[in-house]
Amino acid sequence: MSETPSETDLLVVGSGPGGYVAAIRGAQCGLDTVLVERGELGGVCLNHGCIPSKALIEVARHASGDDATTAMGLTGRTDVDYGEFTDWQDGVVNRLTSGVASLCRSNGVTIVEGTASFVDDHSVSIDPPGATADPETVAFEHAIVATGSRPLSIPGFDFDDDPVLSSRDVLDLPEPPDRLVVVGAGYIGMELSTAFAKLGTDVQVVEALDGPLPGYPDDIVGVVQDRCEDLGVNFSFGEAASEWYQDITGDVTVVAETDDGERHEYAAEYVLVAVGREPVTDVVDLDATSVETDEGGFVATDEYGRTDAEHVYAIGDVAGEPMLAHAASHEGMRAAEHAAGREVEGGEHPIPAVVFTDPEIASVGLSAADAESADRDVVVGKVPFRSNGRALTTGDAAGFARVVVDSDDGTVLGGELVGPHVSEVLGELTLAVTAGLDVGTLAGTVHAHPTLSECLMEAAAQTRGEAIHAPNR
Amino acid sequence: MSETPSETDLLVVGSGPGGYVAAIRGAQCGLDTVLVERGELGGVCLNHGCIPSKALIEVARHASGDDATTAMGLTGRTDVDYGEFTDWQDGVVNRLTSGVASLCRSNGVTIVEGTASFVDDHSVSIDPPGATADPETVAFEHAIVATGSRPLSIPGFDFDDDPVLSSRDVLDLPEPPDRLVVVGAGYIGMELSTAFAKLGTDVQVVEALDGPLPGYPDDIVGVVQDRCEDLGVNFSFGEAASEWYQDITGDVTVVAETDDGERHEYAAEYVLVAVGREPVTDVVDLDATSVETDEGGFVATDEYGRTDAEHVYAIGDVAGEPMLAHAASHEGMRAAEHAAGREVEGGEHPIPAVVFTDPEIASVGLSAADAESADRDVVVGKVPFRSNGRALTTGDAAGFARVVVDSDDGTVLGGELVGPHVSEVLGELTLAVTAGLDVGTLAGTVHAHPTLSECLMEAAAQTRGEAIHAPNR
Repeated sequence: MSETPSETDLLVVGSGPGGYVAAIRGAQCGLDTVLVERGELGGVCLNHGCIPSKALIEVARHASGDDATTAMGLTGRTDVDYGEFTDWQDGVVNRLTSGVASLCRSNGVTIVEGTASFVDDHSVSIDPPGATADPETVAFEHAIVATGSRPLSIPGFDFDDDPVLSSRDVLDLPEPPDRLVVVGAGYIGMELSTAFAKLGTDVQVVEALDGPLPGYPDDIVGVVQDRCEDLGVNFSFGEAASEWYQDITGDVTVVAETDDGERHEYAAEYVLVAVGREPVTDVVDLDATSVETDEGGFVATDEYGRTDAEHVYAIGDVAGEPMLAHAASHEGMRAAEHAAGREVEGGEHPIPAVVFTDPEIASVGLSAADAESADRDVVVGKVPFRSNGRALTTGDAAGFARVVVDSDDGTVLGGELVGPHVSEVLGELTLAVTAGLDVGTLAGTVHAHPTLSECLMEAAAQTRGEAIHAPNR
Repeated sequence: MSETPSETDLLVVGSGPGGYVAAIRGAQCGLDTVLVERGELGGVCLNHGCIPSKALIEVARHASGDDATTAMGLTGRTDVDYGEFTDWQDGVVNRLTSGVASLCRSNGVTIVEGTASFVDDHSVSIDPPGATADPETVAFEHAIVATGSRPLSIPGFDFDDDPVLSSRDVLDLPEPPDRLVVVGAGYIGMELSTAFAKLGTDVQVVEALDGPLPGYPDDIVGVVQDRCEDLGVNFSFGEAASEWYQDITGDVTVVAETDDGERHEYAAEYVLVAVGREPVTDVVDLDATSVETDEGGFVATDEYGRTDAEHVYAIGDVAGEPMLAHAASHEGMRAAEHAAGREVEGGEHPIPAVVFTDPEIASVGLSAADAESADRDVVVGKVPFRSNGRALTTGDAAGFARVVVDSDDGTVLGGELVGPHVSEVLGELTLAVTAGLDVGTLAGTVHAHPTLSECLMEAAAQTRGEAIHAPNR
């Protein structure tokens, strides 16, 4: 760690994918930049979220023999040495976090370990870890609050109790549990349920709403829920988890209640509570500043990420939805550029989203459902992967590509994909939406054969009545 | 099959990915369209090329335990029942070919089984299969020649001899061979060598040039060749296969000679000759027309696909490089639209290319090497996948993304990717090149985290000195 300067152009609090990216961009723009982190460099995403969960999902994919590979003539069984897996997973995380440290250094960012608390609108006090030294005060021209979020719990479920796991705790288990109750069928609950089911865990999902993946349309949810059920995941919808108790064997029983007051009990080794995340605003003493929070507890910001104290920005999860790593990075770069006096375009930027279930869900921009509820005039193309040669050769042709186009001028406004590897097809759709391309350009771009991306091209062509591998309307 | 009409607006000869797509588009444009096929609907691509080879590559991927999955803590062995595999492979092909038939029908294309021979510039005679009936004559306003290509052999190696296999024959083997000599290290030779090595075949590659994958730059070739060698593929470069003989056990010994006249012998069960493809121009009696072929034996065409007989088009492999299915489809659609009197943009269209080795290679537009040899002023961004979180979580972070940008105006001109699943990342790069986007748009588009496509974004950002996860120059 470098020596802490007493003043700086830009002070960034929190080194997650929002904070470290903001700090690097700030330094690239010529600002003296200090990045303060009280825990692990890289934040939740690198250490306890996106990255380790994707490692888990990947090993689970390899471990599960499924119907598709059986049909291909494959037999056998893959065994997972979970200890070796977690060593490898730690290795991936360490490689990325040490990468962050080295990128910060090579860009000239000063990293300071410790807990930052605002003294006023123009300075912070930084407590070194373990109170090994006196706090140091740093005055700043601009600050970026990038303190992220933590898992939200529900009444009666405390993450301090051993059998109650957060999405972070569950990634630190020494073995996959034999039986797991998952409270919440949002994207985190669904990703982890799928992965653990593939690793042999008996998964019971309890969700208060009447289906999984709120906000996603039925035709997408159906594909993912069907696959989950094929994997043996059991769903109980319309039931709110209300309490839990432990029996003499150490097993936990989760009690869930319907609206009618019916009680159901689900026994397991652990209960994972995955009902959402809440912003971390209580460790930096924002009260000492003019920064305000909104009704949701998030820091209130304008389109450039500025808070009520105009030289203080807030980015990423602490500034509200969408609580996604790449949104945080994007907001971080914009805030740093704005602080450096660069011209930054205002307005909304399309933020893509991926759910790493099996198959994956990928979406960006305006959905067909959004268009309908906004009474906006759109043309929708929807082409199933079962018409796509590449999907068939992977043995997994569930799902479809959907493209939403402005009826008046043909601009690509958004779309959704559900199917194999669609997280990588999403880049093209996002580029089309971001660049405001005409759907004819997307449909007329030559796509390599055989690839899944041909399905996106066909959905675009279908909006013009020119699909080759699917019916036109 | 429908009754053969005596005249038609558009006659298409050959139902591969060029011909059937051209026929469907012709019908969509309102032309009475006849599609003539002497063999199997879907052509080589669907029946004996792209599709069955990708099915083989996919099953080989599942079958091979590799270093990456071992590091993840996975052990075990997957067995392949090759008979079940080929049944599944046939099922995939049948599903796609029957899809082609139904798409043709639903678009109103008349499919005629038989061998078409030109009578003159305005009519063909169609011999029904097996000479079961008299030939029928069809007069046409426009014709599209889409007869494709066939594997090329070399002197001394005749595909009619049992141990000498074409890229088509090798896909029809009842079992993977124990030992296979592959003559030719172009993309077909490399794809098949990789797949069979993963299925347990002892593969020896013999190549007259001094390295594999001619036309690809060293840094890409290196990644793929290293992986092949890790899989146990043995390469002998600078040796031209000159003859073969069979011993009493039925094994074949291939004799290869260096420029210095040194002779080497390689014994195997079979020898696969994968040295290229030649156009099929000898079955349609082009001599009866004013259609001319060029020095390479390909039908000569202009930018719209028109031959010397202006109302007759040639598309796909028979019309020359690039001999790729999606280029054929693109040329087919353009030719059909042009024949229908629609306005068709002239000039070059970026044609992407994928090599389905391990890892995959994907490229489009201007390469850095092309730019250098044309003395064109470009900026190149190159970012390795080892800086990419998604690549690390798949256990496979070999390779990189490279973007080539015009130094003057920032337009994305092309690029290359080598790495995991890059065939799907290619769609985005191709769209950027086709739409002539500024590299700032590609770099500024928000990419979902963690995805491989972030590496493309970083390469774009690097050309502007704004990469976050890689050094800038």
